[in-house]
Amino acid sequence: MEPIADAAITDAVGFSAGAVHAGIKKDGQSLDLCLIASDRPATAAGVFTRNKVRAAPVKLSEERLRSGRCQAVIVNAGNANACTGERGMADAERMTALAAARLGLSPRDVVVASTGVIGVHLPMEKIERGIAQIELSPTGGHEAARAIMTTDTRPKEAGARVRIGGQSVAVAGIAKGSGMIHPNMATMLSFVATDAAVAPSFLRRALAEAVGGSFNQMTVDGDTSTNDTLVVLANGAAGNSPLDGSDRDSRAFADALLQVSAELAKGVARDGEGATKFIEVLVDGAASVDDARRAAKAVVGSSLVKTAVYGADPNWGRVLCALGYSGAEVEERRVDLRIGDVWLMRGGEIQPFDRQAGVRALSGAEVRVAINLNLGSGRGIAWGCDLTEGYVEINGKYTT
Amino acid sequence: MEPIADAAITDAVGFSAGAVHAGIKKDGQSLDLCLIASDRPATAAGVFTRNKVRAAPVKLSEERLRSGRCQAVIVNAGNANACTGERGMADAERMTALAAARLGLSPRDVVVASTGVIGVHLPMEKIERGIAQIELSPTGGHEAARAIMTTDTRPKEAGARVRIGGQSVAVAGIAKGSGMIHPNMATMLSFVATDAAVAPSFLRRALAEAVGGSFNQMTVDGDTSTNDTLVVLANGAAGNSPLDGSDRDSRAFADALLQVSAELAKGVARDGEGATKFIEVLVDGAASVDDARRAAKAVVGSSLVKTAVYGADPNWGRVLCALGYSGAEVEERRVDLRIGDVWLMRGGEIQPFDRQAGVRALSGAEVRVAINLNLGSGRGIAWGCDLTEGYVEINGKYTT
Repeated sequence: MEPIADAAITDAVGFSAGAVHAGIKKDGQSLDLCLIASDRPATAAGVFTRNKVRAAPVKLSEERLRSGRCQAVIVNAGNANACTGERGMADAERMTALAAARLGLSPRDVVVASTGVIGVHLPMEKIERGIAQIELSPTGGHEAARAIMTTDTRPKEAGARVRIGGQSVAVAGIAKGSGMIHPNMATMLSFVATDAAVAPSFLRRALAEAVGGSFNQMTVDGDTSTNDTLVVLANGAAGNSPLDGSDRDSRAFADALLQVSAELAKGVARDGEGATKFIEVLVDGAASVDDARRAAKAVVGSSLVKTAVYGADPNWGRVLCALGYSGAEVEERRVDLRIGDVWLMRGGEIQPFDRQAGVRALSGAEVRVAINLNLGSGRGIAWGCDLTEGYVEINGKYTT
Repeated sequence: MEPIADAAITDAVGFSAGAVHAGIKKDGQSLDLCLIASDRPATAAGVFTRNKVRAAPVKLSEERLRSGRCQAVIVNAGNANACTGERGMADAERMTALAAARLGLSPRDVVVASTGVIGVHLPMEKIERGIAQIELSPTGGHEAARAIMTTDTRPKEAGARVRIGGQSVAVAGIAKGSGMIHPNMATMLSFVATDAAVAPSFLRRALAEAVGGSFNQMTVDGDTSTNDTLVVLANGAAGNSPLDGSDRDSRAFADALLQVSAELAKGVARDGEGATKFIEVLVDGAASVDDARRAAKAVVGSSLVKTAVYGADPNWGRVLCALGYSGAEVEERRVDLRIGDVWLMRGGEIQPFDRQAGVRALSGAEVRVAINLNLGSGRGIAWGCDLTEGYVEINGKYTT
């Protein structure tokens, strides 16, 4: 597997994308509507928010993906089309119908995603006009990545190439964060395209596995959104015999999908609202992988850990506190804790440390917390960001 | 039942309290060590953090309260004696032994609580000197309330009088917050005294019930502390025949205990770190009381709701989002939502509202959110506070 430099979702053969400023975002210029399409039918799988309040596009797209097929995705930013009742459902359906008409497809081959403010009806006239104006291009991936942003400060794109059946296959995707970010799912929106041929049932399994080790291990603010959507399309342009999970090529593909998903998830964490630092928490020696993931996520999600990282304050007791309420099995007298290269606890005993070294370990743009619970062999990683005045400022004034 | 104006824990007959500045807090002047004692044996019950990393005083006090008896409480602020291993346990035991010696009691009749920074050993010389200097007084309750504060900006005290067996009985307590505040339990420390005579088993039941409707419905930052402790002492100075839960007097006592606990919990929410506004969320019509409480707590605990309240931004979709991930049964098309007197949703349909009225509803010192899920008869309330730059500032620099 090799990462793709400057990856775009259109690096997967047969995919094209395009975006316009339809006027949904208020700034009067940013891209806010994009279309991603395959030039041939594709197998598809999706993962959606488990929030019981689900946006109209989530309901519609989940239903559509039951077929295991999808050829295009239409996405708007600036309005989530959530809590919008029956009119919201009709609007979501109309978005797919308009996109399908542009592409000469059936609406059933198109899924839709929306992100932005909740509880406001979509400006359908603008969207209709916008869809008519989008120009698809095989190099349009970067535009699509920008068009799905809301408070994100930069686009998130990742890709990898992997050898399957003797040839190079691309897996590439985009994601947007940046508030209301917490599993399950975690990112609000992400789309991944591959030119590999993949059987629908294996694509679902590989996606579930990838999400468990990537988006679901990332948190910005603990709020699971109404709109979380991750869709992967596999159009088979590479001409390989469809991967069904039974061989080494399938494993290689699943690894690439996990890798690309993890890169996108880290990108979202790094660009959390108001974030100045990226935090990675590694938990080793847990009683199970689930426990390790749960513990890592509790630590990276703790408001007190996040503020301590922001202030470069080596107040490590907060890490222990979060471990304790994570739900994972924890025995204080076994815990090892290290932040950067500074040891703070070994076997549950406080390690005297140089305060300046502790401050330094928390002062870079990337902070790494390593924990060994010394209870088993479970290992898990989680990603997040610090909590700053910037987060408060952005979210105190979002609709204004 | 009547609230006690300017209540102090020593309003319960037979209780005295005192506090000193022992030098555990760094400011060189604040009270940081207090003793609360009954002049006669008392029945007692306690509720403690469910965090798996538990401070030494939590472990010791829980063990001691198995007897259902306790006559005094020794408390320090400025250091949590958490993550301090065997030395921490020995220090906690020594605190109870020193307090017991002052009072002529057995250490088994004394419980201990600590609050403050985690992972630092207690300065036992200062504590020993401090305990020797404390002077107990039947009007010392206000001092005790101040001595348990950490980043709290004001003491929390509440009391009520209730007629039991034809006479007036007092239930009075103190609490401290103000960060690392989230059930279960919620407050870091709270102590309640009553001169009623109460059978130990009923005292436990009444306490569990009171906590469920008070401290466990309050959140500041979602971090369940290592030190949460609530202890209630009932010394029987009122001379009533011990309440055992079988009669109307028992009900009246339980109500008073709930009332006092709820007042203290609200006081903690109101004084959350950096808070400028108090938030109350009422959920009605839930499928069960548990669902109602869970839903109310999810809304009041959402970082996005908290920041929207701070910024007086009527971005009400965030309330719906939090309801959806609360775990409570929610059907979007049934939900009614009101903030202050502004209706935002009825039967799942968006209600057009005047934006200025929405801003006003979020602009006072107290913000009330009312939700009807229209699914059943479960009702629950939760309390919290807004999330501000102040919280970030306080917690970025706590140990420095």
